[in-house]
Amino acid sequence: MKYSASALAGALAVLFPTLAQGAAPPTPSQIVAAAPAADWVDVAPENLLVMDLADGGRVAIELAPAFAPVHVANIRTLARARWFDDTSINRVQDNYVTQWGDPTERKQLSIGTVASPPAEYDRAVAGSGFQALPYRDAYAPKAGHAGGWPAASDGKAAWLVHCYGMVGAGRGMAPDTGTGAELYAVIGHGPRHLDRNIATVGRVLEGMDRLAALPRGTEALGFYARPEQRIGIGSIRLGSDMPAAERPAYQILRQGSPSFAAWVKARANRQDDFFIRPAGSADICNLQPPVRRKP
Amino acid sequence: MKYSASALAGALAVLFPTLAQGAAPPTPSQIVAAAPAADWVDVAPENLLVMDLADGGRVAIELAPAFAPVHVANIRTLARARWFDDTSINRVQDNYVTQWGDPTERKQLSIGTVASPPAEYDRAVAGSGFQALPYRDAYAPKAGHAGGWPAASDGKAAWLVHCYGMVGAGRGMAPDTGTGAELYAVIGHGPRHLDRNIATVGRVLEGMDRLAALPRGTEALGFYARPEQRIGIGSIRLGSDMPAAERPAYQILRQGSPSFAAWVKARANRQDDFFIRPAGSADICNLQPPVRRKP
Repeated sequence: MKYSASALAGALAVLFPTLAQGAAPPTPSQIVAAAPAADWVDVAPENLLVMDLADGGRVAIELAPAFAPVHVANIRTLARARWFDDTSINRVQDNYVTQWGDPTERKQLSIGTVASPPAEYDRAVAGSGFQALPYRDAYAPKAGHAGGWPAASDGKAAWLVHCYGMVGAGRGMAPDTGTGAELYAVIGHGPRHLDRNIATVGRVLEGMDRLAALPRGTEALGFYARPEQRIGIGSIRLGSDMPAAERPAYQILRQGSPSFAAWVKARANRQDDFFIRPAGSADICNLQPPVRRKP
Repeated sequence: MKYSASALAGALAVLFPTLAQGAAPPTPSQIVAAAPAADWVDVAPENLLVMDLADGGRVAIELAPAFAPVHVANIRTLARARWFDDTSINRVQDNYVTQWGDPTERKQLSIGTVASPPAEYDRAVAGSGFQALPYRDAYAPKAGHAGGWPAASDGKAAWLVHCYGMVGAGRGMAPDTGTGAELYAVIGHGPRHLDRNIATVGRVLEGMDRLAALPRGTEALGFYARPEQRIGIGSIRLGSDMPAAERPAYQILRQGSPSFAAWVKARANRQDDFFIRPAGSADICNLQPPVRRKP
């Protein structure tokens, strides 16, 4: 995926056939709003995790089995067993993560989960669908997208990157890799130093406005000082376990589609009335694929 | 500032003279905790802006006159006149900004402020104290620090970068540059595409945990739908206008000090027990100089 000028012109011609020569180019939002149905891909119900907070808030997460298959299998097993129900959000560390799970750390995990998953911190780039952006990255030789996910690569391996809203599996010290029973979402500037040091298992599709706005914990690492400060989790269900009528449905702008290429280019070269000097490039964490509720 | 291996070794020898060969190197936090008094620089009271929220929360901001002198002069004038008192936080957009000012946009600004400040979006790199990091940056030819601030440069100009906690002056469309009466703090992944498109006037020293945890507004751009949702600002005072006994005092780890060089290196090469694969580099927004309350 080169995002070349000619590819962009082609994409724009398809999306905005009446775009006048010399008129202001479409903004990223306009490109997303105009993307045809074929440029969107459904989030599979078996990759959808629906967390309903005790107070009624909802957080929807997409799992990434192509990058962390054993961790994702564990999370599916736990969700199917409704293991997460009545657990809580226990840690909110400013500019870092919101983390949830069993605060007692004593809840039985031997319900079909793998006790010590392998270190799914990266995978072979071959078969990952990785496509590099033409922009520099502070952390990796190449950053881009893989199968619709923000990713990076060194030419051999590919890995998901720690951007705002990405979900990882909490773990202790090496060689512990975490089971998937303790999950966190990034709520600050991408802590990319965690890349390849922890299993990144998914991304938040909806509800970041809630996870990121929770009161910060005052104990070390942002843990809440008192149990009553924790935010109760009513349930975490797998989308495929929910009745179809209840299940929320999401779509991701399809990597490689004309709209996606045009959106990347427009994000890196803001040209609406507000912007005076387009950057000409963008950080992968500012290029997370657009998500929408399926219309 | 090369952060060379020998400079690092020298800095570590100074800071940790008993560090055993082969022992785990100090973590970034340990380096900051061990930094001697000479490696810290005071925030000047005339550059300190103290915002007291109506509910008792406090946010402290350092102004950046070396980068936006006219905007900063305006902000000082407004704070001295207690112009901001009884205004409010009006906009909280997830993964973007928290913004405050006069919600009516009718409060008289003709109290000695410059109505249309120049476009202080960058400045000459000469004299800025810019020192490049040896790491790639997605947006600029070079990223690094300038006078203790996170910055970038193209070799001619230098500018402050939009990282978590940086403060900018809201503006309308060009050529309006904003007066400084409408301010915002970044609460998400650094929106670096704003660099050089808006006047960056300061940084939050304390209170980000509060600004970033506010409920997100549900109107376009995150504005609150109803006036009663706004968060009242009791007062915004200039530090130099506060009685010394009431004035909070902050220090920044001094750019160019041995501790600073060691801290940068350690942040880019995490080597405590948790990290398996140090990144070997870091994003400027993950290298914002450490701040502390003056002991």
